[in-house]
Amino acid sequence: MTYCVGIATGEGLVFAADTRTNASHDNVRVHRKLHVFEWPGERAFVIMSAGNLATTQLTLARLRADVDDGAGRNLRRFTHLHEVVAYVGEVLAQSQLRPPDEENADSTEADGPDFGATLLLGGQIAGEAPGLYMLYSIGNAIQASPETPYLQIGETKYGKPILDRLAHPDLPLEDAARLALLSLDATMRSNISVGMPLDLALLRADALKVEPTLRLEADSLLYTELRSRWQHGLRQAVGMLPRFRWEPKAEP
Amino acid sequence: MTYCVGIATGEGLVFAADTRTNASHDNVRVHRKLHVFEWPGERAFVIMSAGNLATTQLTLARLRADVDDGAGRNLRRFTHLHEVVAYVGEVLAQSQLRPPDEENADSTEADGPDFGATLLLGGQIAGEAPGLYMLYSIGNAIQASPETPYLQIGETKYGKPILDRLAHPDLPLEDAARLALLSLDATMRSNISVGMPLDLALLRADALKVEPTLRLEADSLLYTELRSRWQHGLRQAVGMLPRFRWEPKAEP
Repeated sequence: MTYCVGIATGEGLVFAADTRTNASHDNVRVHRKLHVFEWPGERAFVIMSAGNLATTQLTLARLRADVDDGAGRNLRRFTHLHEVVAYVGEVLAQSQLRPPDEENADSTEADGPDFGATLLLGGQIAGEAPGLYMLYSIGNAIQASPETPYLQIGETKYGKPILDRLAHPDLPLEDAARLALLSLDATMRSNISVGMPLDLALLRADALKVEPTLRLEADSLLYTELRSRWQHGLRQAVGMLPRFRWEPKAEP
Repeated sequence: MTYCVGIATGEGLVFAADTRTNASHDNVRVHRKLHVFEWPGERAFVIMSAGNLATTQLTLARLRADVDDGAGRNLRRFTHLHEVVAYVGEVLAQSQLRPPDEENADSTEADGPDFGATLLLGGQIAGEAPGLYMLYSIGNAIQASPETPYLQIGETKYGKPILDRLAHPDLPLEDAARLALLSLDATMRSNISVGMPLDLALLRADALKVEPTLRLEADSLLYTELRSRWQHGLRQAVGMLPRFRWEPKAEP
């Protein structure tokens, strides 16, 4: 499994992903899920992936090759972000291998491996606003909105409550980045298929460059501090909760 | 769906449950999931239920009838809590209706409605320590432990992260009760199949009586205060998190 989260705020976009892949309980590896495509000053994209590793690797290889080959349609050519999303969606859909006799079958219903994958794609093209999208395996996409300024792929459930409570388009970008890390940390505590190290990337609005990017190891000072201070902060927050009517009043 | 959580601390047991049942998206009703069986001074049990409503209602009716009829095996007769758990598990397993031709089939694999249900059972018999168990639909059970002092049934995922961070056997009982309410609140924010009002019950160790119990409506002062103070506390906790190396130092 995998967990990736993107948050869109007025200040820009935050991307965070774990790096664990597993084909079974004892076939666990580290693979990067967060990928940067940028032409500074012109356009910058981040793509995060969850699902079948062969599918996502092929998708990324084709995106890169289309740029390198100067193909008619490639990441560098489009004027609008929604065109980039449609193109990446097509490449994603075409990169899902299927046995020939299942061409018309729904891969999620067939027995055997699931070749599907989902992507988070965020970025900005000069002259446009930044945008954050989730691409389903058949290539269609939904966009983050002010009411729901985050998108998730992979093992999404355990990291969702903290986002539902705190994700907001008015968050400072670095606070959104800390929130994304908390969401990942919550997921890792509750699900062993998501694991360290973590990748984090920020795309500040109109910077047209993905910066900074960061790989966080489990023993890094930032990560251990994040965990321990959050734990401390949560305990303090519990202490501020209202008392039941049968309890003695809290000491001032 | 449903969400019920029980927490076992050194001071006793906490039980919390929502009250929403749904047979489909537009067949949503309020049903109590938290049920008290007590003989003060002698023994006290709380049973919470998730899953097929017909199954859980039949189970509870049979448990009550066995007591009323003075059956050879009933909640009042057993000397040990683990015997109570085994008995309730048998009643639960026998209360799951199945079409006659599916008697030997696994109900979770069959098409059509799922008649299964799970229970949380906690309580104390005089002379024993309190105990908290989760009963699976076939009647077997697992017990909470100091390392994992909580058990959940129903829609368990969204309410799990906060428990993983804060549930601890050393918690004061009322703090554990507030934690259970936070876990329910997190679940309701992320999943519409879990809904208000909430039921809360405390079983203090050696009290041999379930007290207090509480029904919390969405507009109750306690619940609205709980939500707003938690939100405030979380924001404060985010503010205490470590800064990235590229950020200016926080003001003292």
